[in-house]
Amino acid sequence: MLEITIPPFDEQAAQTAQERLDVLAKLPGSLGKLEELAVHLAGITGQACPSFPHKKLVLFAGDHDIALHGLSFTGQEVTAMQVRNFLQGGGTINAFCRTAHADVQIVDVGVKEDLQGLAGLTQCNVMHAAHDFSQGAAMSREQAVACLSVGMAMARQAQAEGCTLLAAGEMGIGNTSPSAAIISVLTGQPVAAVAGMGSGIAAPMIQRKVECITRGIELNQPNAADPLDVLAKVGGTELAAMAGFMLGGAALRIPVVVDGFIAGAAAAIAVALQPAMRSMLIGSHCSAEPGHQIVMDYLGIPTYLDLGMRLGEGTGAVLLFPIIDSAVRILHEMKTRKDIGLSC
Amino acid sequence: MLEITIPPFDEQAAQTAQERLDVLAKLPGSLGKLEELAVHLAGITGQACPSFPHKKLVLFAGDHDIALHGLSFTGQEVTAMQVRNFLQGGGTINAFCRTAHADVQIVDVGVKEDLQGLAGLTQCNVMHAAHDFSQGAAMSREQAVACLSVGMAMARQAQAEGCTLLAAGEMGIGNTSPSAAIISVLTGQPVAAVAGMGSGIAAPMIQRKVECITRGIELNQPNAADPLDVLAKVGGTELAAMAGFMLGGAALRIPVVVDGFIAGAAAAIAVALQPAMRSMLIGSHCSAEPGHQIVMDYLGIPTYLDLGMRLGEGTGAVLLFPIIDSAVRILHEMKTRKDIGLSC
Repeated sequence: MLEITIPPFDEQAAQTAQERLDVLAKLPGSLGKLEELAVHLAGITGQACPSFPHKKLVLFAGDHDIALHGLSFTGQEVTAMQVRNFLQGGGTINAFCRTAHADVQIVDVGVKEDLQGLAGLTQCNVMHAAHDFSQGAAMSREQAVACLSVGMAMARQAQAEGCTLLAAGEMGIGNTSPSAAIISVLTGQPVAAVAGMGSGIAAPMIQRKVECITRGIELNQPNAADPLDVLAKVGGTELAAMAGFMLGGAALRIPVVVDGFIAGAAAAIAVALQPAMRSMLIGSHCSAEPGHQIVMDYLGIPTYLDLGMRLGEGTGAVLLFPIIDSAVRILHEMKTRKDIGLSC
Repeated sequence: MLEITIPPFDEQAAQTAQERLDVLAKLPGSLGKLEELAVHLAGITGQACPSFPHKKLVLFAGDHDIALHGLSFTGQEVTAMQVRNFLQGGGTINAFCRTAHADVQIVDVGVKEDLQGLAGLTQCNVMHAAHDFSQGAAMSREQAVACLSVGMAMARQAQAEGCTLLAAGEMGIGNTSPSAAIISVLTGQPVAAVAGMGSGIAAPMIQRKVECITRGIELNQPNAADPLDVLAKVGGTELAAMAGFMLGGAALRIPVVVDGFIAGAAAAIAVALQPAMRSMLIGSHCSAEPGHQIVMDYLGIPTYLDLGMRLGEGTGAVLLFPIIDSAVRILHEMKTRKDIGLSC
């Protein structure tokens, strides 16, 4: 059903990168997490001295009928509005991608409105909104697989275009609710610990959100040992596509940078489906959403940016792109201590 | 003696930037500290919609005879070696500046070795190493002023070149010791709380370093109410030049990004000399050096990068350049909520 092979983390490439870092004309270890990042990228790519000239952000859009409970700051129609905005270049993610010299691709995997024929949109719609999971399963198992496959296909397309570094973004009003549900089920943490203000809702609404998500988990009884079951029952289309994209990138040894809370939930699904994914993902920022640290701990990957962001779209991941460039650039361009005349 | 006027933070420009951020097609406040950064940059520059097409890192190099106590991982001669390396483009800072599309200028303000005639070096040497402040004053008051003036002149030169965003870097074996002394005197925190592993020394050497710095403060009796006295007695040439560069940038409404521990000490001197500087500086990363957070708290400016770096050279500051570009780019390029059809 999900035939994908995740190659092992390349320990040899990682070790060669570490050895290189240790002889460069700087104090060993003085670049801290940036050195660990460079070593990690070497292990993912299998290249001791990787570089990332062609970057891309793929943004998956999908709706969630759980949003009809009014758990979000804005209405469901905003998903399609923002898709149009992104296609015209007017979103935050567009601005950030221009700074990072990254391509942007917008993929409809589950938007409620029919966006057929919208110029520039990659049309892969599997269903017009995930169902309200407080009343039944969000998707069928087949729909979840179809969405995962969309993500994997987008990773292969990116490789065909020559992309060397990827990030997964999302747009989907209400998608912090399925994300919280997934993270709660997979990590075993209570819903109240992982569900937060999302788009910016106040405390009483957060309480209603927690109740709604809890009801959905109790009704659907997702099986934590079967990640596809969790994804289908309490997930969503763009979450599934992001997980597929991360799996697809890793299969091709292309690093995929994980954004915030929602991308973290997708990464948790990817890791639960394929434990080898644990060493194949790169974190970016620590989101303001309280459950984000819980999922990053579950994934076991560090974050680098402390910006208090809670926007999504892949914005935090794309902000890391130039830092990744700097982290690997030193492997190519720095002199060694010996080169500059030092004996130690 | 130090005639410089720091213009007031432009509250009107900052407010206009905030109002713009609040109507953009994203949830208000969802970019967290990045929005505060954009507003801060508007207030410093006096432009509601600033942009920074021309960036530059100015690296000030100087030696410290306190290093002769063997308090550093490497010998004093490494300062000049690294200056040569930076001029040839082989340092970490060179690689990071290439990623950030930033110019690099290397200024000799106090290197021990005579580097007269070295191609590409800006020669402004005031003295060949600051004196060992455990045995007397590091500099005379006149030498400290001369170094401050070098920094101010470099800020004016950067403006003449059309630079719109600056960072101050440094190279100087042993310079965490005068930095710790300055921070201890200005903040009132004990030396043991602010002096750390610096370049990577072990615990027994840190103890010797603390004793040496403490002796220097007791001997020199720097007057915390007279920042120039502190700078001259327990500071150093490149620290003074960095402080001057920060003052010079602020006077011209050009933001100067503060790097780590050593730049933090220089910023503390700048703020002590001119309290209006408090609102004119931009932080970057949180260094691994324990005293860094103490000085950032004293300065009252946030940091954005959590990378555990302790290299200096201005590396952390330059890593923030693309993030600054992204923070202000949204002011120019994003659609508003009204533009995309939203009523709220």
